[in-house]
Amino acid sequence: MKRLLITIKYDGTAYHGWQVQQNALSVQEEFQNAVEQVFLKRLDVKGCSRTDSGVHANMYCLTLDTDMNITDDGVVLALNTKLPPDISAVECREVPLDFHPRYNCVSKEYVYKIYNGKFRDPFLEKYTFHYRYPVDVDYLDREAKHFIGTHDFAGFCSVNSEAEVKREGDIITFTFEGDGFLYNMVRIMVGTLLFVNEGKIKEGELAEVIASKDRKRAGRTAPPQGLYLNKVNY
Amino acid sequence: MKRLLITIKYDGTAYHGWQVQQNALSVQEEFQNAVEQVFLKRLDVKGCSRTDSGVHANMYCLTLDTDMNITDDGVVLALNTKLPPDISAVECREVPLDFHPRYNCVSKEYVYKIYNGKFRDPFLEKYTFHYRYPVDVDYLDREAKHFIGTHDFAGFCSVNSEAEVKREGDIITFTFEGDGFLYNMVRIMVGTLLFVNEGKIKEGELAEVIASKDRKRAGRTAPPQGLYLNKVNY
Repeated sequence: MKRLLITIKYDGTAYHGWQVQQNALSVQEEFQNAVEQVFLKRLDVKGCSRTDSGVHANMYCLTLDTDMNITDDGVVLALNTKLPPDISAVECREVPLDFHPRYNCVSKEYVYKIYNGKFRDPFLEKYTFHYRYPVDVDYLDREAKHFIGTHDFAGFCSVNSEAEVKREGDIITFTFEGDGFLYNMVRIMVGTLLFVNEGKIKEGELAEVIASKDRKRAGRTAPPQGLYLNKVNY
Repeated sequence: MKRLLITIKYDGTAYHGWQVQQNALSVQEEFQNAVEQVFLKRLDVKGCSRTDSGVHANMYCLTLDTDMNITDDGVVLALNTKLPPDISAVECREVPLDFHPRYNCVSKEYVYKIYNGKFRDPFLEKYTFHYRYPVDVDYLDREAKHFIGTHDFAGFCSVNSEAEVKREGDIITFTFEGDGFLYNMVRIMVGTLLFVNEGKIKEGELAEVIASKDRKRAGRTAPPQGLYLNKVNY
């Protein structure tokens, strides 16, 4: 018996997140179906985290146990012949039998992408949040640092080691790295920084909003299609 | 009465090209439906060229005539409320009444995108051709110059003023600029350069293949999802 750590990548548009659930298509369900066809039995697949409905992953890690004699690249290639086009395996390696994709994770990086162009872009509709207001990226980047080290923002526990906002052309990317992201956390932080951008949270006020732990004082939850689980660090 | 030159951008995945046709969804049909809702009558819309089924456009130009009193930005914004998410208007300006989007076009630029990564990428599936062989980009870039100035390649008339192949990470971009691209032309040129890459057309042999005007000696037609009409120059 060996434990395999498999890395996948997915376009989450069509899925209700990673986790299997009744009456809704999930990435895990599609993945387990592919696994069943490759390994010829239903295997228990453990993921590194839940992801919300419509959220994407540039890197998502999971484990499964098998005694099948197959190379790591063979696993990747075989899975890709069975997975739908919006999910792809990209790496496979053996890990110790006590390795757990969630508990062994040291930190995760999420990115959130905003398209700041004037008119809708058909190629970015499903992969960014189209936000039309002018954005002062340097200001937001400075303000984003207030989230670093916060432990209980808006009722959620979180410890972040990095928070950054930068622009490339019309794309603005928010990056958050940390070890305790909970439900909607990143999307609330982005929504809150957009409130800062719009002056709804005044300059110098953000630290206090965070300290208040009052969800109502934070910003809107930014929509899911801009969010990517970007890196999982072990 | 004034003539408007409107620039749009579209993800061609769902469409059988620009041109209206029976029993198949076209970009022109969707656009004319949006125009009818904005201008409150069915207007004649003239495009700058046909595009093949599944091909994308970063820039596509068309004209229509109207006596409606509306600003250029107003036209763009109104159209975008009626167009589906995979088609977007990006610019509008008035042109002389004798302007024709096809005949007045001086040249067009097409790009063709190849994804050269080892494993499938779910975000690139519909927007690139996944080609797994190693690619010698400098060699192909040199060989691509043979297409410049060709007038009758593989039975099609074409005059190209620019041909370039370059790589950025796992994405290889073929760029062709010219004034007479005909049906499948760019996709045949790309397919032929891939034959060169694979040694099916030997070093030094391409000029002769082109001169032979024999379609059977050229390469496969590269698939549509990698092709973009990128610029229309007036």
